[in-house]
Formats: sequence, C-alpha cells, structure tokens
Amino acid sequence: MIRFDYNYFMEEAIGPEHGITVGELDGLRTLASEALNRMAREKAEGRLGFLEIPYDDTVVRSIEKFRKSAADRFSSLAVIGIGGSALGAQALRNALSHLYLNELDERKRKKRLKVYFFDNVDPFEILAATDVMDVRETLFLVISKSGGTTETNANFAILLSMLKKKVGKHYREQVVAITDPEKGVLRKIADDEGFATFPVPQNVGGRFSVLSAVGLVPAAFMGIDIGGLLSGARTATERYYGMDLFRNAPLLCAAFHYLFDRARGKRINVLMPYTRKLFLFADWYRQLWAESLGKNRDIEGRPVVSGLTPMPALGTIDQHSQLQLYLEGPNDKVITFLKLNEFGCDVEIPDFYPGIPEVDYISRKSLRGLNRFEESATEMVLREAHRPSAAIILPRLDAEIIGELILFLEMQTAYAGYLYGINPYDQPAVEQGKQFTFGLLDRPGFERFREEFERGSSKRDDYIL
Amino acid sequence: MIRFDYNYFMEEAIGPEHGITVGELDGLRTLASEALNRMAREKAEGRLGFLEIPYDDTVVRSIEKFRKSAADRFSSLAVIGIGGSALGAQALRNALSHLYLNELDERKRKKRLKVYFFDNVDPFEILAATDVMDVRETLFLVISKSGGTTETNANFAILLSMLKKKVGKHYREQVVAITDPEKGVLRKIADDEGFATFPVPQNVGGRFSVLSAVGLVPAAFMGIDIGGLLSGARTATERYYGMDLFRNAPLLCAAFHYLFDRARGKRINVLMPYTRKLFLFADWYRQLWAESLGKNRDIEGRPVVSGLTPMPALGTIDQHSQLQLYLEGPNDKVITFLKLNEFGCDVEIPDFYPGIPEVDYISRKSLRGLNRFEESATEMVLREAHRPSAAIILPRLDAEIIGELILFLEMQTAYAGYLYGINPYDQPAVEQGKQFTFGLLDRPGFERFREEFERGSSKRDDYIL
Repeated sequence: MIRFDYNYFMEEAIGPEHGITVGELDGLRTLASEALNRMAREKAEGRLGFLEIPYDDTVVRSIEKFRKSAADRFSSLAVIGIGGSALGAQALRNALSHLYLNELDERKRKKRLKVYFFDNVDPFEILAATDVMDVRETLFLVISKSGGTTETNANFAILLSMLKKKVGKHYREQVVAITDPEKGVLRKIADDEGFATFPVPQNVGGRFSVLSAVGLVPAAFMGIDIGGLLSGARTATERYYGMDLFRNAPLLCAAFHYLFDRARGKRINVLMPYTRKLFLFADWYRQLWAESLGKNRDIEGRPVVSGLTPMPALGTIDQHSQLQLYLEGPNDKVITFLKLNEFGCDVEIPDFYPGIPEVDYISRKSLRGLNRFEESATEMVLREAHRPSAAIILPRLDAEIIGELILFLEMQTAYAGYLYGINPYDQPAVEQGKQFTFGLLDRPGFERFREEFERGSSKRDDYIL
Repeated sequence: MIRFDYNYFMEEAIGPEHGITVGELDGLRTLASEALNRMAREKAEGRLGFLEIPYDDTVVRSIEKFRKSAADRFSSLAVIGIGGSALGAQALRNALSHLYLNELDERKRKKRLKVYFFDNVDPFEILAATDVMDVRETLFLVISKSGGTTETNANFAILLSMLKKKVGKHYREQVVAITDPEKGVLRKIADDEGFATFPVPQNVGGRFSVLSAVGLVPAAFMGIDIGGLLSGARTATERYYGMDLFRNAPLLCAAFHYLFDRARGKRINVLMPYTRKLFLFADWYRQLWAESLGKNRDIEGRPVVSGLTPMPALGTIDQHSQLQLYLEGPNDKVITFLKLNEFGCDVEIPDFYPGIPEVDYISRKSLRGLNRFEESATEMVLREAHRPSAAIILPRLDAEIIGELILFLEMQTAYAGYLYGINPYDQPAVEQGKQFTFGLLDRPGFERFREEFERGSSKRDDYIL
C-alpha cells in the first residue's frame, strides 16, 4: 500500500522557521474533523461520485466486452477531449503502458492500440497527427460530459469529416461517445447517430473522472488492467474515508499544505517523481490541485484567498534545471517526492573506461541504484537547506497502486478544499473566457461579449516594442 | 522581428495595485544602465560566449559537412545528455521538426533521423527506447561539456556496450562527442577512441549552449536550418545589445519581472504559448530562468533573496487546467504569452451538425481562428481580473525567428540576473547533491559525504503513515 513519509516536513528536520510542529498539526484537529464531516455529508447527499465509481464493476465489464469486440478492427485510438477528459488517460498511458507505445511494431504492441490525443485546438497538431494516423483503422473516442466543449467539438468535427471521406456510411462503427448518461448535446448526437456510448456519471466532475469511462475506456485499449485500477481505488477509499487526521495520509498531506501556506507563506507545491513513468501523473494532478483550490469565495460566498500553485518536476532531470532554485531561491516551495520503491526492472552499467577514475566509479553499478541515490541526495540537500519535502511512496508500479494513488490525490484535494472552506468541485472563473470566445465566434446570444471584448481590448502602440 | 507587448503589465490596464507605472520603470533607469554596463564589461572580458556563438559560421559548415557524410548511414539519432545538453535540442525538435517525427514513414521523414533522448537515469526509459530504436542504424551523440556528468556517462556506458555487441569494432564510426575543445575527460576519451567531435566553447554555460554544437548538431540531423538559427540570433544580439531600457525588449521584460517581484510580491512567472510547437521552449526557458536567477548571494557574496519560479503553460489546454487558479487564486503570477502571429497552416472546421445550435456555431470557422480567439479571451479575462500579462510576439515559426527568440530569452535572463546583482551563469547549490551521490556510489575521495549522508538521514518511523 501507499505510504506517506513526512519526516522532512517537520521542524525536527528543517527547523521551526520552516518546519511544522506537532502542536500546529494538533491545532488543526477541529478543522480536520469538520472536513471529514463535510465529506460524509456531501457523500450522503450523493454529490461525491469520485468516491462511488471505484465500486462500479459493471462499467469494467461493459468496457472489456466492447474492447474485445472492437480491438481487432483497429490499430489506433484517437482520444478527443480536453482537460479532465484527456489528462487522466495520458497519465495512465505513460504509467502503465509502454513509453514508446506508438513506435512498437505490431508484434511487440500485441493487441494494444496506438494512441493519439486531440486535446488542443492547434492546426499544427492535428495536421501532424493525421500525417501518421491511419483514419481507416482508428477508433475515435469523443469525450465531453456536456457535449458543449468548443475545443473538443472543433477537433471532432474535423476528424469526423475525414473519417466520413475515408469510410463512407460505416463511420458510425468507428465512433464512441463518452458523455452524460441522459443530458447534453453529445448524448443527443450519439443517440441520433447510433454511436456506441459510455456514461460519465452526473456527480463526477471532469478532473475527478479518470476512473470513470473517461479514463477507463482509453486505458482498456492500451492494455491496462482497468479492474485493477478500481480495486486499488477501493483500497484507498476504505483506508482514508472518515479516518482521523493522524491516520489519514491524504488529509494530513492537505493539512501540511494548508499550514505551509497560512503559517509559512509557502504556496508553490512541487510534485516530483523520479521516473518518467509517473511524470504525467504530476501533470494530471496539476489540473486537479490548481482548478480545485484556486477560488476567491468560500462556500458562504465570503471573499477568501485560496490557491496553491502546483508544479510538476522530474528527477533526475530537474536536478539539472530546478534544484538550484529550490535550494537557494526564496524558501516558498513545498516539495513532495512521488517515490517508486520497486521499479521491477533495472540495467547494470557495464565497465566504463576502467583506469579513468573520473568516470570508472559508475562501472558495474545499477542504473536503478543510481536513480535512488540521486533521489536520496536531493532529499538530503533540501533538508540541509531547510526546504520542506515529503514523500508519497508507491511500493510498485501496477494498476492497483495507480488506482490507489489516484484516489489518494483526489481525496487530498477534496480535503484541502474543505480546510480552506471553499468548493473544490467547481470552476466558476473559466466561464467568462468561454463567453468571450463564443462572442468572438459570433455564436448567437453572445453578441454582448464581443462588444464588451471590443470595448476593453484597446492597446497603446507605444507599449509594444 | 519579435515584438514585446506590455500593455497589460501596466497600471492603465490592470490598476495601480497590481500594474506597473511608467514612473516605476523610470526609477529603474540607473539599475538598467548598470546592467548594460556589466554586460559590456563581461563581454569585453570574453566571458559571454552566448553572445559570440551566433557569429561562428564555421561550426555550421563543419556540422553540415558532417551531416552530409553521415546522414545516409543512419535512421536514428540518440542524444545522450542532461539539462542544458538536452532541453535545447528537445525544444528545437518540437518547434522546427515534425511533431510526430519518429512515427513518420521513411518517405515522409525524408533524410531526417528519428530522435531518441537519453537524459534521465531511468531503467524504464532506456529499456523502452531500446525496444524501438535500432542500435545498428543509430548515430550516438554524447553531450557533456566536462565529461563528468554522472547521468550522461551512465546512459552512454549502457548504450555504448549495446552498440559494441551489435557492430563490433566499427562502433567508433557511430559515436560523436560534443564537449570542451581541449579539457575534460570526455575530450580525452573521444581523442583516445577516435570519435568525431564538436566543441562546446569554454565560455558558454550549459543552459546558454543551445546555439553551439550542443543544439546545432542534433538540429541538423532533424532537418533544421541551423544557419537560420544563428542568423536570427544575430538579429537579436544586434537589436538588443547595449540598447536603452525603453528600446530593449529583453531588458524591459527583465525589469518588469524585477518590479513585479520586489514591488508587488509576484514571483511566479508563467510562459504560455498557444501551440504545442512552442511548448518545449517554455520548458527550456524553465531551466534557464530558474537556475540562472535562483541565488542566495550577490556577486559581492552578500546574502540576497533572488529567484523567480518559471512555470510553462500551454493554451488552450491550460484554460481547462490552470486558468481558474490564475484568475481567482492569489494574485502572485506574471503571465507572458508566447504568441505566434502566422501559423502558416490552418484547418477549416466543416459543417458540424447544422440545426443543433449548441454546436453548429463552430461550423465553417477556422481552427487557427478559434485558437486566436481563445488566446485573446484569456488575455482579456486576465486583464479584467487585474492579473498582469504581456506577450512576446513571434511573426512566424521558422529557424530565424526561433534563433531570435533564444537570444531574446537568454539576454532577458542575463539582464534579470544583473538587476538582482547576482551571477546568472553559475549553479553553486547543485554541487553538494552531486557529492552525496558520489559518496553513495563509493566514488573514491567522497567517503565523507556518505558518512555525512548516513548521519543526517535518520527518520522517525511514526512520521511515516
């Protein structure tokens, strides 16, 4: 199971100016209890779908059934979705599939599909992808809870038109919609067209949806054990739901971040794995943490300053990029290592120019061992520089552990939102930008946003160099 | 040429609490003059190689000559290097080669080589890469200025051994060393072995080296116009070197960041392009900015707080990930858009379910237009939320403009270091971590670091949940 090591968050390790005391944690007990109560209340109200979906094994069976019926017909998967509809599947591909999946020959790829993501609105990307993706052999997953996501619809429109040109009326057999089970425009389109569909439960928000069909369908086609993901997620739910602060790692982790912000002025949160396999999890978490906690009103509507800035980092690479800043720059960061205990693979470094001592010291060492030493050394120098660090420790890398990690980080995020007294599940501020975009696109009903945009966007030429 | 639009950095746009006034910029004139003088002095002393390498056309000719003699023999390029020896080439590949270069068939790839980077120390990565890379047809570039980089040597040792097993004594013809022209252990090894070599000038630091052979050799094999890169870099040098604050965009940009930090408490710096083609530039810049400015001593050795935290972001994706935090979270960020004016490509969105108004509004719009509208809308909502943003505007995407951008950002970084009074070219803090690693690897002479590590690394079990 996943463990949480907070030794170097504490004042014993890094001193009282920057480290947290047991007394400070004790002082949070009441707030932590209230957070647990709020989670229980919201769960009872049926609002916390992310705690329920790990128990829905029917979705696993229906996805596996569909995969078996479809996989042989395709060589590639196109995932059309943005934000919470893409980041989770990208992280899963990286962690649990092959790092060079798309470049494997058919024999090595086995039944797994090559995967292309269409998340951005970027002509460079879509043109480049269609240079290499064979549309005839591609299964298209369009993922949008509401169906109203402009970026997703733009990419879907272009790809759907290409598909129709290539395969004619059979295009319907190559499209799957993942959307609201009843409402929304994508549900209507899919029903009218007769696309296969999978549901996104209504009480699961985009950034908490990776363990719904949103992440599980693409994962299944990458050869990932999706039942294992849910099983691991259940482990986390059972381990942490309703548990006291000092036995509840995600809540404790949230409490530390809250204290580092409120009592030490540190609100940049680095999540740093030491293998590329876990790097995109840091990117998935970047959305989860930023969008959930960045709020200026509490749940009563009162002004509040809330928002921790997540930063993904990757060891050992970022020792040669960010470590100088972490060690000697302002002490405004809280670093969490995402440690992997057992890699399950290794390479021995062969003899390397014996007789040249400046390089020979690596001969016959293990690559994994070197990786581990560098991680330990970084942890140590951070400690010596009085910079707080902790570690979320994964015993191994498989679907169960990744499922557990997902729930761990989702619960941590929810708990943090409760400590700040805000709503971690909405994103009110991004609506206005969408309205400006609709206005600029001449969408009927949004004319006044174009006018507002035009009034507001004047610039002085002498401020452009 | 590149332009810099700072309208929304100014108090006229975002108000005096968060925006900068002309008076504040005026107040920096003396400090800015001193920065220009320091650059002139250090340049005269021959210490600023990054300002000199754009004028070295002989390196372009020798690289092109080598490429022509070698390209036909290989299908892949392995780039072995870390930090400044990898990030620049990665950014160039992304910006100026094909986004799916490695997946192109030979005909579409033309003479360009597939590229694999070996920067991390990670058994997952090296094993995955060797699943797809044909060692017999690979040209290996090992890049290390000193030759003493542990990570690079570990990967090189493993790959060299694989290569020897496959091709026997001819392995020498498949290895190129990019290193110091005279000193260091990689120079010695390359000379002893008879590897082809290209120099890294001694007065060019790793993170300022992308326009030396470090970036140019890999770029040439990706089909990039390396002469164009240097030509664009010369444009920037001539445009900005020695120029007054209000006519010197990189210096002015540095001055804004300095003021936002010192006078407004904003020291998180987001660099946000709206196309994936430019995203890895934000990552390259992340090293440049972090490692150059994160210092706790000024050049006189006095304690100083210096260090701005760079954050790469990518539109439109991060509107669905980070924008909520940027808009409603703490007003502690300074956002710089990396705008591309002419994409040079576009896709028309075809008719998309006419009659369904919730989606039909995108029909017959341009994908590039949508991208531009979203960028404009984001700029506008940031302004309305009193969050500072500016734009570095690239007229088009080609080697000349990218060369100009590289020098722009390098000069901006150097100027910022001068404003803070620190040395932007060293990285003293990362040495201690290396020494711990050497100790843990039992490297002779570093025994005391292992002892120090063992004394310092004790942990309490009850702080591990």
